[in-house]
Amino acid sequence: MEKVIKDQRHAIVKGLAEANELEAMAAILKKMPAVEVAEILRELPHEQILQLLPVFSREDLGYIASNMDMELLMELFDLVDRRLFGRIFTNMSSDVRADLYQELDKDQQLELLPFLDKKTREDVIFLSSFPEETAGSIMITDFATIRSDMTINRAIEKIRQDAPSRKMIYYVFVVDENMKMRGFVTLKDIIMAQPDTLVQDIIHSDFVWADVYEDRESVAQKIEKYDMVSIPVLNAHRQLAGIVRQDEAIDVIRAEHTEDLEKFMGIVPAAEDMNYVETGVLGHFKRRVVWLSSLAVIGVISGMIIHAYEEAMSALIILALYMPMIADTGGNAGSQAATMVIRAMALRQITLKNWFRILFKEARIAFLLSLVLGIIAFGKILFLSWETEIPLQYSLTFIAVAISAALSLQVISSTVIGAGLPLLVKRLGGDPAVAASPAITTIVDITGLLIYFGMATMLVL
Amino acid sequence: MEKVIKDQRHAIVKGLAEANELEAMAAILKKMPAVEVAEILRELPHEQILQLLPVFSREDLGYIASNMDMELLMELFDLVDRRLFGRIFTNMSSDVRADLYQELDKDQQLELLPFLDKKTREDVIFLSSFPEETAGSIMITDFATIRSDMTINRAIEKIRQDAPSRKMIYYVFVVDENMKMRGFVTLKDIIMAQPDTLVQDIIHSDFVWADVYEDRESVAQKIEKYDMVSIPVLNAHRQLAGIVRQDEAIDVIRAEHTEDLEKFMGIVPAAEDMNYVETGVLGHFKRRVVWLSSLAVIGVISGMIIHAYEEAMSALIILALYMPMIADTGGNAGSQAATMVIRAMALRQITLKNWFRILFKEARIAFLLSLVLGIIAFGKILFLSWETEIPLQYSLTFIAVAISAALSLQVISSTVIGAGLPLLVKRLGGDPAVAASPAITTIVDITGLLIYFGMATMLVL
Repeated sequence: MEKVIKDQRHAIVKGLAEANELEAMAAILKKMPAVEVAEILRELPHEQILQLLPVFSREDLGYIASNMDMELLMELFDLVDRRLFGRIFTNMSSDVRADLYQELDKDQQLELLPFLDKKTREDVIFLSSFPEETAGSIMITDFATIRSDMTINRAIEKIRQDAPSRKMIYYVFVVDENMKMRGFVTLKDIIMAQPDTLVQDIIHSDFVWADVYEDRESVAQKIEKYDMVSIPVLNAHRQLAGIVRQDEAIDVIRAEHTEDLEKFMGIVPAAEDMNYVETGVLGHFKRRVVWLSSLAVIGVISGMIIHAYEEAMSALIILALYMPMIADTGGNAGSQAATMVIRAMALRQITLKNWFRILFKEARIAFLLSLVLGIIAFGKILFLSWETEIPLQYSLTFIAVAISAALSLQVISSTVIGAGLPLLVKRLGGDPAVAASPAITTIVDITGLLIYFGMATMLVL
Repeated sequence: MEKVIKDQRHAIVKGLAEANELEAMAAILKKMPAVEVAEILRELPHEQILQLLPVFSREDLGYIASNMDMELLMELFDLVDRRLFGRIFTNMSSDVRADLYQELDKDQQLELLPFLDKKTREDVIFLSSFPEETAGSIMITDFATIRSDMTINRAIEKIRQDAPSRKMIYYVFVVDENMKMRGFVTLKDIIMAQPDTLVQDIIHSDFVWADVYEDRESVAQKIEKYDMVSIPVLNAHRQLAGIVRQDEAIDVIRAEHTEDLEKFMGIVPAAEDMNYVETGVLGHFKRRVVWLSSLAVIGVISGMIIHAYEEAMSALIILALYMPMIADTGGNAGSQAATMVIRAMALRQITLKNWFRILFKEARIAFLLSLVLGIIAFGKILFLSWETEIPLQYSLTFIAVAISAALSLQVISSTVIGAGLPLLVKRLGGDPAVAASPAITTIVDITGLLIYFGMATMLVL
């Protein structure tokens, strides 16, 4: 229902925009959540955006801008005068504005800096200095700190001073005179406590934290594991440098998800969050061509095996006919096993130590699969090849048994390879996700051909 | 570093457990976060667990139990007497205990109910009644409500009453006498306000909410989009029924991620969160065999095409040799395109409306890929087949050109099919993720063979 209301509101605002009814638009926009205002502004012509901006308070503008995508922010930078942009920038969420600052080129940065106050300037330069994918690069610097010898009353005063007006604050961090973190209290603790209690009496001094240079994925995992609303980020001196919030953890998890899927399909992960539509044809091409052409080159090995059995196939053409079936089935079974193992490792359900148990389990699963798929293959061959020319000394049934047996063996070996390869890559210190579908398909092609022609040579030729 | 401390602590506790030093263990465990205590208990023998339980307060026990996995909880149910279990259960997080209640069989439920107070009993039965994957099934009922005509001082008193001691509370919900939701205030608003202000003066009356029967994925998306710490869940009368917290949204996103990956590889998604280790061989087998054998059956179509060109291959054996290359390359290119499109749809970067633009873009990407892969194929054929027997009227170069051209065409058609199929499935109301790797591989095998032999018939035979 609410969705309907939201869509109606969007439609009304669009209608007003077409009629250029700016005042009415402003009245509606002012009541909408910032993220929706940002969505609507994205679709308006530049002159309307310019006319609408003065309607909002600086604070609202900062909040709306924090919800815009990078492209619109860059347009805004070109569109409005530096002074206004500086004001908006100052009120933006500290992590988004640091990202924006990094997107600007050196000249643009220098144009913007004079319009920022000292605190914002320092904060932006500080946050932009952390390497990508670290806690430092995704933390925000909006937090409230108190001392342990304060009373609750005094602490509340301090929080009122520190708390940026629109920002969510739940944990209040207790630091000593050197900003070293001592613990935290929650707003709930503060509300539950008597006004003259000392902070040190309600402090939680056992706490989980992240290092500024810690990998963002590990930070997200801590937030998830300990169900935290935000996690403190400390520097090498154990001083509080910033916080990473739970909604940032969600973004990290989504980004890692995309990266996983892409690695799975042999797509080179984009350096930054990439938008399908905004990336050009050449960009997409570059990300895909590397794997595809590597696999084509590795395919030379399969080609050599196939050529080695060229004469066998000439003599017994039915062998050639079922070569693709062996390759496809092996690729599918191996990819499935790899998916299961990679995902179970990512969710920490299995570790390298259990490698033997995992492979043994996969072998048993594969055995069952090989029975079913072997029988299907046998039926298929009898159905398809009843007219195929076969040298007199063999019966079709005999050949069908040989080919199905090869296929069954291929299912078992592909499944075990598919499960084992991610474990091996992990053991060698790599990311198991690279050992996924395209790589496995190519590798089990090779083993499949060896099994297939090996079996054929033994039984038939 | 903290990781080291944590691992050390775990190691120490383990050592103490082996020496059966229960008192020392208890002293350490009492200082650890509940999630870690749950991890450690999982590995202890039952008699030690029984001896350790009395060390913790009921409240702590509830908190620790909320962090246990279902298996350990079921063991605990069998292990301790009903009265103690009832106490632990009462103090558990309302969503986890509702899940646990559903895991129990009817007899076990009846054994437990007498040991619960009326409020807990009603709550559990209420929460267990919602269908899986709805907001109702993942919400918790621990929240604080106030009225809009209260002063801040009175509101704080009410929150102190309502707030379950260990639970995180950030939003306080403002309801009328019929529990209809009017808006919310945050703990921060309360701390910032003067004690005699009225709640109605600081209320946020524009709010985002979820319906009890809303799909959990949509709930998670709202939490993510609006950066909420938790979202109110309302029933058909707009009454506050529960809240879904951000950490639940993370769990939902992870679960959906696993489901996506599995669908990608043609693995039947598990009804519930499945653990790789705990699922038996037969369970794994069942989830994989459906797709693998369906694909094997559909493979009959490829088989029929291949058989139709049996004579052509007998005459020109080189055609048989490169059949697998065509199939593999097409499968890889198609799967990549499908991955990109499915992910871009999931992230709402593209919609069905743009289908033509997407396919056109993919066609251009594919054109570039086809050039590179065609050239590699040409080189491969010259390198591998210089000894292959070819009827006198053709040169190897001519045949290599024909096969590479077929491969290039196959790359283009597979990419467009790979991108188009998820769009089509979505258009027909299905989940685009099912149109992924295995399905695409099988389909582009068919088109690939048609292109390959079509080209061969035209140019060579």
